[in-house]
Amino acid sequence: MRSQPTWPAIRGIAYGGDYTPEQWSRETWDEDVRLMHEAGVDLVSVGIFAWALIETDEGVFEFSWLDELLDLLHANGIRVDLGTPTASPPAWFFAKHPDARVITRDGTVMGFGARGMASHSSPAYREAIVRIASALAERYGDHPAVVLWHVHNEYGVPVGEDYSEQSVVAFRGWLRERYGSLDALNTAWGTAFWGQHYTSWQHIGAPTVAPSVVNPAQRLDFARFTDHQLRECFRAERDAIRAHADQPITTNFMANQAWVADLWAWGREVDVVSDDHYLWAADPEGEIGLAIAADLSRSVGGGKPWVLMEHSTSAVNWQPRNVAKRPGEMARNSLAHLARGADAILYFQWRASRSGAEKFHSAMLPHAGTSSRIWREVVDLGSKLDRLDELQGSVVEANVAMLWDFESFWAQDLEWRPSEDLSYAERVRAYYERLWRDGITVDFTLPGHDLSKYRLVVAPAQYLLSAADAANLTRYVEQGGTLVVSYFSAIVDEHDAVHAGGYVAPLGDALGLTVEEFLPLREGVRTRVAWRGDAQAPLTADVWHEAISLAGAETIATHLDGPGAGLPAITRHEFGAGVGWYAGTRLDAEGLRTLMHEVYADAGVAPAGHPDGLEVVTRRGDAADYVVAINHRDEPARLEASGAEPLTGTELLTGTEVDGAYQVPAGGVAVVRVEREGGGR
Amino acid sequence: MRSQPTWPAIRGIAYGGDYTPEQWSRETWDEDVRLMHEAGVDLVSVGIFAWALIETDEGVFEFSWLDELLDLLHANGIRVDLGTPTASPPAWFFAKHPDARVITRDGTVMGFGARGMASHSSPAYREAIVRIASALAERYGDHPAVVLWHVHNEYGVPVGEDYSEQSVVAFRGWLRERYGSLDALNTAWGTAFWGQHYTSWQHIGAPTVAPSVVNPAQRLDFARFTDHQLRECFRAERDAIRAHADQPITTNFMANQAWVADLWAWGREVDVVSDDHYLWAADPEGEIGLAIAADLSRSVGGGKPWVLMEHSTSAVNWQPRNVAKRPGEMARNSLAHLARGADAILYFQWRASRSGAEKFHSAMLPHAGTSSRIWREVVDLGSKLDRLDELQGSVVEANVAMLWDFESFWAQDLEWRPSEDLSYAERVRAYYERLWRDGITVDFTLPGHDLSKYRLVVAPAQYLLSAADAANLTRYVEQGGTLVVSYFSAIVDEHDAVHAGGYVAPLGDALGLTVEEFLPLREGVRTRVAWRGDAQAPLTADVWHEAISLAGAETIATHLDGPGAGLPAITRHEFGAGVGWYAGTRLDAEGLRTLMHEVYADAGVAPAGHPDGLEVVTRRGDAADYVVAINHRDEPARLEASGAEPLTGTELLTGTEVDGAYQVPAGGVAVVRVEREGGGR
Amino acid sequence: MRSQPTWPAIRGIAYGGDYTPEQWSRETWDEDVRLMHEAGVDLVSVGIFAWALIETDEGVFEFSWLDELLDLLHANGIRVDLGTPTASPPAWFFAKHPDARVITRDGTVMGFGARGMASHSSPAYREAIVRIASALAERYGDHPAVVLWHVHNEYGVPVGEDYSEQSVVAFRGWLRERYGSLDALNTAWGTAFWGQHYTSWQHIGAPTVAPSVVNPAQRLDFARFTDHQLRECFRAERDAIRAHADQPITTNFMANQAWVADLWAWGREVDVVSDDHYLWAADPEGEIGLAIAADLSRSVGGGKPWVLMEHSTSAVNWQPRNVAKRPGEMARNSLAHLARGADAILYFQWRASRSGAEKFHSAMLPHAGTSSRIWREVVDLGSKLDRLDELQGSVVEANVAMLWDFESFWAQDLEWRPSEDLSYAERVRAYYERLWRDGITVDFTLPGHDLSKYRLVVAPAQYLLSAADAANLTRYVEQGGTLVVSYFSAIVDEHDAVHAGGYVAPLGDALGLTVEEFLPLREGVRTRVAWRGDAQAPLTADVWHEAISLAGAETIATHLDGPGAGLPAITRHEFGAGVGWYAGTRLDAEGLRTLMHEVYADAGVAPAGHPDGLEVVTRRGDAADYVVAINHRDEPARLEASGAEPLTGTELLTGTEVDGAYQVPAGGVAVVRVEREGGGR
Repeated sequence: MRSQPTWPAIRGIAYGGDYTPEQWSRETWDEDVRLMHEAGVDLVSVGIFAWALIETDEGVFEFSWLDELLDLLHANGIRVDLGTPTASPPAWFFAKHPDARVITRDGTVMGFGARGMASHSSPAYREAIVRIASALAERYGDHPAVVLWHVHNEYGVPVGEDYSEQSVVAFRGWLRERYGSLDALNTAWGTAFWGQHYTSWQHIGAPTVAPSVVNPAQRLDFARFTDHQLRECFRAERDAIRAHADQPITTNFMANQAWVADLWAWGREVDVVSDDHYLWAADPEGEIGLAIAADLSRSVGGGKPWVLMEHSTSAVNWQPRNVAKRPGEMARNSLAHLARGADAILYFQWRASRSGAEKFHSAMLPHAGTSSRIWREVVDLGSKLDRLDELQGSVVEANVAMLWDFESFWAQDLEWRPSEDLSYAERVRAYYERLWRDGITVDFTLPGHDLSKYRLVVAPAQYLLSAADAANLTRYVEQGGTLVVSYFSAIVDEHDAVHAGGYVAPLGDALGLTVEEFLPLREGVRTRVAWRGDAQAPLTADVWHEAISLAGAETIATHLDGPGAGLPAITRHEFGAGVGWYAGTRLDAEGLRTLMHEVYADAGVAPAGHPDGLEVVTRRGDAADYVVAINHRDEPARLEASGAEPLTGTELLTGTEVDGAYQVPAGGVAVVRVEREGGGR
Repeated sequence: MRSQPTWPAIRGIAYGGDYTPEQWSRETWDEDVRLMHEAGVDLVSVGIFAWALIETDEGVFEFSWLDELLDLLHANGIRVDLGTPTASPPAWFFAKHPDARVITRDGTVMGFGARGMASHSSPAYREAIVRIASALAERYGDHPAVVLWHVHNEYGVPVGEDYSEQSVVAFRGWLRERYGSLDALNTAWGTAFWGQHYTSWQHIGAPTVAPSVVNPAQRLDFARFTDHQLRECFRAERDAIRAHADQPITTNFMANQAWVADLWAWGREVDVVSDDHYLWAADPEGEIGLAIAADLSRSVGGGKPWVLMEHSTSAVNWQPRNVAKRPGEMARNSLAHLARGADAILYFQWRASRSGAEKFHSAMLPHAGTSSRIWREVVDLGSKLDRLDELQGSVVEANVAMLWDFESFWAQDLEWRPSEDLSYAERVRAYYERLWRDGITVDFTLPGHDLSKYRLVVAPAQYLLSAADAANLTRYVEQGGTLVVSYFSAIVDEHDAVHAGGYVAPLGDALGLTVEEFLPLREGVRTRVAWRGDAQAPLTADVWHEAISLAGAETIATHLDGPGAGLPAITRHEFGAGVGWYAGTRLDAEGLRTLMHEVYADAGVAPAGHPDGLEVVTRRGDAADYVVAINHRDEPARLEASGAEPLTGTELLTGTEVDGAYQVPAGGVAVVRVEREGGGR
Repeated sequence: MRSQPTWPAIRGIAYGGDYTPEQWSRETWDEDVRLMHEAGVDLVSVGIFAWALIETDEGVFEFSWLDELLDLLHANGIRVDLGTPTASPPAWFFAKHPDARVITRDGTVMGFGARGMASHSSPAYREAIVRIASALAERYGDHPAVVLWHVHNEYGVPVGEDYSEQSVVAFRGWLRERYGSLDALNTAWGTAFWGQHYTSWQHIGAPTVAPSVVNPAQRLDFARFTDHQLRECFRAERDAIRAHADQPITTNFMANQAWVADLWAWGREVDVVSDDHYLWAADPEGEIGLAIAADLSRSVGGGKPWVLMEHSTSAVNWQPRNVAKRPGEMARNSLAHLARGADAILYFQWRASRSGAEKFHSAMLPHAGTSSRIWREVVDLGSKLDRLDELQGSVVEANVAMLWDFESFWAQDLEWRPSEDLSYAERVRAYYERLWRDGITVDFTLPGHDLSKYRLVVAPAQYLLSAADAANLTRYVEQGGTLVVSYFSAIVDEHDAVHAGGYVAPLGDALGLTVEEFLPLREGVRTRVAWRGDAQAPLTADVWHEAISLAGAETIATHLDGPGAGLPAITRHEFGAGVGWYAGTRLDAEGLRTLMHEVYADAGVAPAGHPDGLEVVTRRGDAADYVVAINHRDEPARLEASGAEPLTGTELLTGTEVDGAYQVPAGGVAVVRVEREGGGR
C-alpha cells in the first residue's frame, strides 16, 4: 500500500472546474488551454462521465485521447483531478447486465439515457468499477499532471436506495452482520407491532411500497444499508487506485442536497473532503445555505482544508426557476467557501455543453464566449485567488457547535410523525441562520463526539438520540457546557423506539424536564408566547406546542394561547456547572433572537457585532489570522475587529494597509491579514 | 351450528381497548392488569396482529403465550374480545405464496413490512384464514375469558381493491353469477360505447389503468365485487369460529373512513356491529363527523346497541397534523358515541407501542405513564361509565332519516362527472350538520327501506337510484312523507346508465320536475339566490346550478345571477299526502338553514332549541329516557326539555336531582335519567 | 390507384355529428332519422368505435347491421362519413395479442376497458387495421350514402408515445434510417455528455424514466418517431381504403389539445383536413382558443375549406368543471369555425349516450330530449346554415402569420429549462390574443415556409430553429418583412443543441442582437419596463429578463428594476428593407398592446377597429366577400367596414339589406354578403 497524502500537490488556492473535452473538437482543446491560462485556472477535473469512451466494450480500453489530453494539460502546467467514470456506466454495461439496473420503491425499473450508477449491490457493477478504476490508476498513477483522484460523482445522486433483487440479497447479509440473530432483529425492529415477526432471514425484503406505512426501523436500517453499500463502492475504487497511485483520493459530496450518505463516515474514508454546492435559487438568502454546507464539509473532514469541487458561475438548470447570479455574486460565493475552509475553488464546468440535459447550466466559459460578464468575472476571480495563496492550509476555529446527525434526519423525516410540519432541515436552518446573523462561526458535530472545546452546543433536531449519546450531552452540560435543545429531540433510540420514560427522558437530567404529550398546531395557526412573563409584547410561535413536565427546569416563556396555553414554552435548567435550555415551540426569527441572546450570555459567547449583511469568518494561519469579510449588501459596510485583537494588517485583494477598520465595498469582499505577535497558533 | 348471541356477556357499559402484550415483557403484563383495574377496564381486544406469533409456520401453532395471557386476564376479571389476526399475514405466508400479494390499479405489487391482508381472492389466503380462525376457536371457544370474537381488522383498510390475477379470475366468476350471459353484461355495462363489446368471459379484466377513463359500470361492479369478496373472507372466518364457539362475532367497521364495505350488507352478517372512529384533526368540529359515524353504525345494525371498538384517547399519528384532544374532549367523544348507541367504549390502544409505525398514536396508558393528563382522564371516564351501566340496552329513536347508500357513493365519485366539486361526503355532511345543529337525531337508511316511520327523509347525494327505489321514495311522499332531495340525485340506474326520461325523471312525480341540463359553476364563483322572491337579502350559492323543468312543483327560490339566472333554485311540490322538496344548487350554511326550517315545518319536525354547541341525544330504556347532553362550549350551557315531557329526574354522573333544567358545565357531559310514567317504551 | 377528391360530395355547408346507433334499439334509429330531418342534419359519422361489433373475432365480419343502417340513412338523404374503428380495438384483439398493449414511460401496462389504440408499432395491430379498413372499403366503397372516410379517431389521444418492446424495436429502425450511422446519432444526441455514447444500435432504448433527466435530443427524436409511427398507421389505413373507394379520406385532428401529431405533415396526407374542437371551460374567453385552433386547422390544410368534425352543443364531461354553453353560444362557436374556413359543422354527438364514460357529454339530442333548449338551438342553427350554403368553398385570407412549430413545442416543454414558467402555448396564446382583439386575421405557418405574402410574421416561441429556417426568416426581413420574435427563440438547432455563437445567434442579423445570459425571475416577481424612456408610466413584466448584447438593434424599452435593471427589454432593428423586433421579457397584456401597435405600424397593418368583443372574419368567395361578425357581448354591436370597401350588401341570416353598417344583436351573429365589382377574387 502506498502513502496517503491529504492535499493535492498544487501551490496556493487551486482554481478551475470540470472539463469535458470529449464534447469538443481537438482544436477547441487548444483554445481551452489558452483560455485557462487567461483565467488563472490550474486544476481541472476530467474523465468523470467518460466511461463509454474509455472502455468501449467490456475490458476493451481506449486511452489514446486521454493520453493526449493529459499530456496537453501537463505541457501547459494545468493539474488534473482524474475522475473515475463510474457514476454513469455505458450503454453496453446495462445491455450486458440488465439485472444491474436500479429499481425504485414502487418497482419501477430505471432505464438508460440519463445518468446514474447501477445497483450498488450488483456484483457485475462492483467488478466493473474495480476494473476501470484499476486500469486508469495503472495507466495514469505516475502521470505528472495528475494531482488528485476523483472517484465517482456525487454518491447518492441521482441513485441512492435500490430495491432490486441484488440489493435485497445484500440487505439480508448486512442485517445478519448487524444483528447476528433474528431475535435481535425482531426486537430492534419491533416486529411484534403489526405482526411482522420474522422466522427466516430469507423472508426479509427491502421496504418497498406496501399497503400501509412500512416499519420505520426497517426503513432506517435500509437507509443505513444504502449508505454502507455506496461507501463500499467507493472503498473498492479507492483501494484499486491506491494500488497504483500515490495522489490523494476524494469523492465529491453534496453536503446541502443529498443526505443519503452519512458524511461523518465518509469523511474518514477520503484523503481529502470535497463538496459540490449549488444555491437554492428560490431562497433570496442562499448565502446562508452555502455557509451551512461549507461548515459541514469542513467539519466532516475534521477541520482540514477541503476542495470545493463544484459550484456554479451563475444559474444552474435543474431548479424550477434558475436564477442567475448577479454581478459580484459568484466571487462572494466562491470566497465564502474559501473563508470557511475551502482551498480549491472549482466549478461545474469549464465550458458550457451545447447538448444534453444541462446545456443551460452556467459555466466558466458560457455559450456567449469570452465577451461576457461571466467570463470577465471568472478571469477577475482567478487573479484575486492568486493574491490569497498564502491562506492555503489555514484553518477555521469555532467555539460553538451544532449537531448534525444523518441518522436522526433519516429517522425523523419518515411518514406518520406527529406533524408534517416537522422538518429536520428547517430547524437546522433556523438555528444556524440565527448564529450566522450574529456573526458566530459554527462547527457541526455529532452528539457522541468530544464537545469539550465548545462553549455552546445547539441541538436543533436530534429526534433520534441513543442513550450513550444522551449521556455524552448530559456530561457536557454537567461539566459546564451550555446546551440548547429544540422540540422533538431525544424521542427515540437508535432503533426508532420511543425511549423508556417518555419523550426527552434521556436528556431529563440535563434539561430538567420530560414531555408528556405533543400538541401540534393546525395548519397556519400562530400563537403568542410571553417571554419572562411579558404578555404585553408577546413573541410569536407556530407549528408546535407540547405538554412539558418540569423536573427542575425554570420556565422562561409561557404559551398565552393555543393548546399549550398556560404551559411552559421555553425552559432553562442549571445542571452541574452548565445550563440546559429547551425550546418546546417554534418561535419566529425574532423570538429565536430573544432566546439565543440569553443562551449566548449563559455560554459566554458574544455576537460579533458586524453590520447586517456583512459575513465575517476568520481563517487562522501559522503566523497570521485572515479575516474574510463578504458584503452581501448594496452599500459599503464597515469592517471592524469583533474580538479583543485590533484589526490591523493588510487587505490582500487591494494591498491596502488596514488600521482598525476597513470599508468593504458594496457587494465586495475583503481579506485582511492580521499578523499575530509571536506568530504561533 | 351453535346459537348466535347479539351482545357479549358483560354487564353494563364495557370499557377497554386493544391490548398487545406481545410487544411487552411478562412483568409488564402484571402491571397492565393492575392498571386496568385502576381504570375500570373490563374488556380488551387481543391477538389482532399476532398471526406470526401464533402460527409460526404453515400449520405450526404456538398457543402457550396466549393461554397464559387469557388465563391471567380471566383470573383478574377482564373479559376478552379475541381477534383473528388475518389482517396481517406473516412474512412466511407471503414468502410461500407470492402470488397472494395485492396488486394496485397501476400494477404495483404491494410488499411486506407494513400491515395489510393478502388478495381477498387468493385460495391460499382463504385456506389460511380458515385454518387460523378454526384453530383459535377450537382452543378458546370455551375459554371463560372470551366474550366476543373480533374477526380480522377494518376490512377495506389498507387493502380493498385488488388487481392481481387471482382477483381477476374471481371477478369473472362473480360477473357470470351476476349476469348469467354475456349479452346481459354487455347491456348492463353499455359496452357499445367506445367499442368494449365482449365476446368471451375470458376477455374481461379488472378495471386497471388504461389509456383513458375506464367504463364506470365496470368500475362500479368491481367495487361491488370487492365488497363481496371481503365479506366472503369474513363469512369464512365467522363460520369457522361458529363451529367451535358460542360468543357473538363481530368485525370492526370504519364507518367514517373506509367506504369499501357496504355496511348495510355487513350489518346483516355480524352478530353485533362494531366501529372504529377517529376524528379528522383538521376539522375544528370533528364532533359532527363523529355523530355521523355513530348514527351510521347504529343504523346499519338495525338500531341495536353497538361496540365502539376503537377510538383514541388523544391524537392519532397518521394524519398530516395530529392534533391532540383537549382536556375533557376524550370523555365528550366517548359519551357522544354512547349517546348514539354504543354500549362498549374501547380504544386503540391500551398501552402506547414503543416501536413501529404507530408509536405516536395516543393510548390509554401513554409513553408518559400514569402521571399524565391522559391517564387521569382515562381513570375518570372509567368511573363515569360505571355510573351509566343502566343505559346498557337502551335505544335511540329518530323520526328523521337520511339516505346513505354506498353504491351511490361508489358510482358518483368516479372520474368524468359534470364537476369535480361534486362530492358524496360533502353533501351528506352539509345536511347532517344542519340537522345536528338543530338538535334533530337522525337515522341513516337506504332508499329501498321501509320509510314509513319517518316524518322526514333527506336524500343528500342519491346519484344512483334504481327505478324500484325511486318508486319507494315516491310512495313515501304520496303517503304523507316529506322528502328533500339535493341536486345530482336520481341521475343513473343501478348500471350507472342515465335514466330514460332524463335527469331526476324517476322522482319526477314526487318532486314535480325534471332537470334539463346541468350548469356547473367555475371554481370559486359564488352566486345569489332570492328566497321567495326576496332579492334584497339574497342567499348565497356556489358549485352548481341547473336548468330545472317544472312539472307541477312550485319555485321557492330563484337564481339571481350566474348561468341559472332567472331559473328555479329550490322547489316544493305537494304530492299525494306529502311534500317533495328539491334543492338544485349548493346553498351555504345559512341558506341551508332557511331551506331546512321550511322543510321541518312541512314534516312536522321541530328544532330542539338547545343552546348552540350543546349536543343532546336521548336513549330510551325500558322504564326511563336517558338524556345525554354534551357541552362543546367553553362555558356552561343550560339543558332544558326539548319536547313535551319535562326534564325531571337524576343526573347520573353527579347524582344531582334535576327538576326542569340542568346546567351542563363548560366542556362537560350530563346524563339525566327521566323516568317515564307507566314505564313502557 | 383511384382519384383523390378534396371535398365530400355534399352541397353547401354540411351539418351533423357522430352517430352511434349501435347503442340504441332499431326503433330509435327511425326516430333518429326523423329528428335529423327536423334539425337539417345531412352528414353523420358512423362506425368509429364499432370494431367489436363489425369484426367479432379475428377475420370474422358482421356487416348486416351496418348494411341496414347505411341503407336507412341513404333512403333518407343523410350522407355518411364512414369511420374505421381502429382507435379502439376489441377485447379479443388484446386477449390474442397481449404484447400489443401500450406501455407508459414508467413501465405501466395500459389495460382494456376504456378506449385507445394498441401499440402503433405492433405488427399485429398494423395487420388488423389494414384488414378492417380493407373490409369496410371493399363493402362500402361504392355505397351511395358514403361521401367521406374517417380513419381512426384523434390520433395521439389518448395514446401517443409507447414504450413497449415493439416500439423500441421500431424506434431503432427509425433512428438507423434517420442517421445512417451510430457516429451521426452520437453526434446529434450529444452522447458525450453524461457518458451516453452508443456502440451498438441494439443498446438504444426508448427514453423511459431513468435516474435523472433523459437526453433531450433522444426525447425529441422519440416525439418525432411517435408522430411518424402514428402517421404510418394512418397511411396504411388510407391506402387500404383508397384501393376500393373514391371518396375523400380524412382523420380528425385535435388542433388545440393533442400536440403529439405534427399537423403540418399530416395535412399533406389527408384529402381534407378535419378537426375536433372543445372549449376549455375554465377559460372565460374560450372563443380565442377556438380561433387559434380553427386558424391552425385551415393553415395546415393549405387554406382549403376543412371539416369541423367534432365540437359540442354544450358542456363536455372530461374537464374538472364542465361549464355548459349559454344560450346562443353554440351558434357563435359553430359560426366562428365557419368564419375561419370550416365548411362542415359536426358535433360529438347526435344523441347523448346513456352509459359509459361520456354520458354527461352534451349532444344534439340531449338526455332531456326535444323539449330542451339545446334541441331548439340545434334546429335553429340547422336552418341558419341552410342560408349560408353559398359560403361553401370561399376562403380566408390573411396578411399576418404566426409561427407554430410542433418540433419547437416538443423540444421546449421538456424538463430542465431555464424556468418552468416558460411555456410554448402560453406565448402563442398571448400574441394571438393581441391580434384577435385587434381584429387581425392570422395564418399559422412554419419558419421554413414561403413568408413573402405576409406583411408581419410573429414568432412567439421558436425555441428550436434550424440554421436554414433562421436564414429563411432573415431573408424575409431583409426583403421587407416585419418580424417580431419573443424571448427563448432561436436557442437550439434541430438536435436541441445550443447554436454556435450563443443564444439567438442565428437571428442575429435580422434582430441586431444576441443574448448573453438568461435572467429568469423568481415566482410571482413583477418588474417595471420603461417604454421609449418613459419611467413615469412604466409597463409591467414578469417571468423573464435576459442580458441582451446589442449588435445594431435600437433599444425601445428598458428594464427599470429586477435582474435586468438598465438592460434592454424590447428592441427594434432595421435590416435590409424590413424590421426585426425582439421582446426579451414577458409584458402583460397592456404592454403587449403597446409593443404590437408599434409593430403594426412598421408592417403596414392596422387594427380593424371593431367594437370590443365583436369578432369579425371575412371569407372571400368567387364573386363576393362574406363578412362574418360574431358578437360575444351582452349588448348589440355595430359592425362597420374595416377596410376601404364599404359594407354594402345583404345580411344572409335575416335577409336584411345592409348599407354601410349593421347592428349585430347581443350574443348574435351576422353574415353580410358584400358583392365585389367585377366579381373576381
